[in-house]
Amino acid sequence: MRRTEHKCGDITEFETISSSADVGYLGLLTTDGYPRVIPVNFATEGETVYFHGAIEGEKYDLLKESPKVTFSMNLVYSYIPSYWTSKKSAGTATMFYKSALIKGRGSIVTDEQEKAFALNLLMKKHQPEGGYQPITADDPLYEHIFKATAIFRIDADQIDIKINFRKKKSREYNLGLIKNLENRGMGRDLATAAEIRKILED
Amino acid sequence: MRRTEHKCGDITEFETISSSADVGYLGLLTTDGYPRVIPVNFATEGETVYFHGAIEGEKYDLLKESPKVTFSMNLVYSYIPSYWTSKKSAGTATMFYKSALIKGRGSIVTDEQEKAFALNLLMKKHQPEGGYQPITADDPLYEHIFKATAIFRIDADQIDIKINFRKKKSREYNLGLIKNLENRGMGRDLATAAEIRKILED
Repeated sequence: MRRTEHKCGDITEFETISSSADVGYLGLLTTDGYPRVIPVNFATEGETVYFHGAIEGEKYDLLKESPKVTFSMNLVYSYIPSYWTSKKSAGTATMFYKSALIKGRGSIVTDEQEKAFALNLLMKKHQPEGGYQPITADDPLYEHIFKATAIFRIDADQIDIKINFRKKKSREYNLGLIKNLENRGMGRDLATAAEIRKILED
Repeated sequence: MRRTEHKCGDITEFETISSSADVGYLGLLTTDGYPRVIPVNFATEGETVYFHGAIEGEKYDLLKESPKVTFSMNLVYSYIPSYWTSKKSAGTATMFYKSALIKGRGSIVTDEQEKAFALNLLMKKHQPEGGYQPITADDPLYEHIFKATAIFRIDADQIDIKINFRKKKSREYNLGLIKNLENRGMGRDLATAAEIRKILED
């Protein structure tokens, strides 16, 4: 498997992105030759992506036609307003993110054990606190789900990781950003500041 | 223009989604026949989408090859854990969202006035508080940006809007959700509760 790593990507970063991004964006080919994008909840096991959909729904039909898929996961960290780094120019505004793009082969999972595994994996990601009966293929409670739900998997041929806030900038620029991020403290700002601090310490 | 409206879509919903989603997901065809997905910051004017990229970068090259694009915008509202609505089954877990998918024609903007318009539109969306000199094509401050930055537009042929939390459910189910969402009060939970309340009042 080829793994292209923009800037500074590794499997740890892939796991950070895939475990924290609630929604991923599946790229599929339509029969009229368009690149269809579908947001889905997903979970990963190693470098395999699982998600679900309706049997004979759109994803099911398109994946049967063409296994050529991509899958984008994006973790937005912080918007950096232009005035943090320039008094006049709007051109310094930027968005900090970590993203992964998988290029691979999509398929429909037919094995009942693997379907149960994937459904439990999705639940563990989105509901780590539990509060449900584990999903098994032979539990009458889940019979209708196994009938109505298709599970899809993507096997990655290539993973591109892109981290926007590892661009080479001066120490002063980065220290200024950390101060501003810590003062604002919105959303993932503190995580962004911690990431920049790590880079400075390297 | 055909507009397919799943469940309950209208132009107001499109504006809610496009103005609140920080990142959109561009679907492009690659030369080896894959549906490439690229996360981008974007802004819309009516039903036209603008975003930027590097001149002779990937988006630039792929859009020149094929104008067949889609663009997905997704606004995640609330994760609904299964145990809010079932004591045992994981099958009632769901994610509430509003999403829009545009199918259309992508192109590279060459008119300098339109480029300036789009750049200001992007700034107004992401930095509504201002704090920069408005972007004009003849301002020496922005000369390098006009040289290095490509502006792209998508003209929509079709817009699909999907709102997950307008499914027909009982009044009790919805009142239970509102109570749980208001108690939890995380992220967009209060907005989700307000939306469900509106539906109940209709």
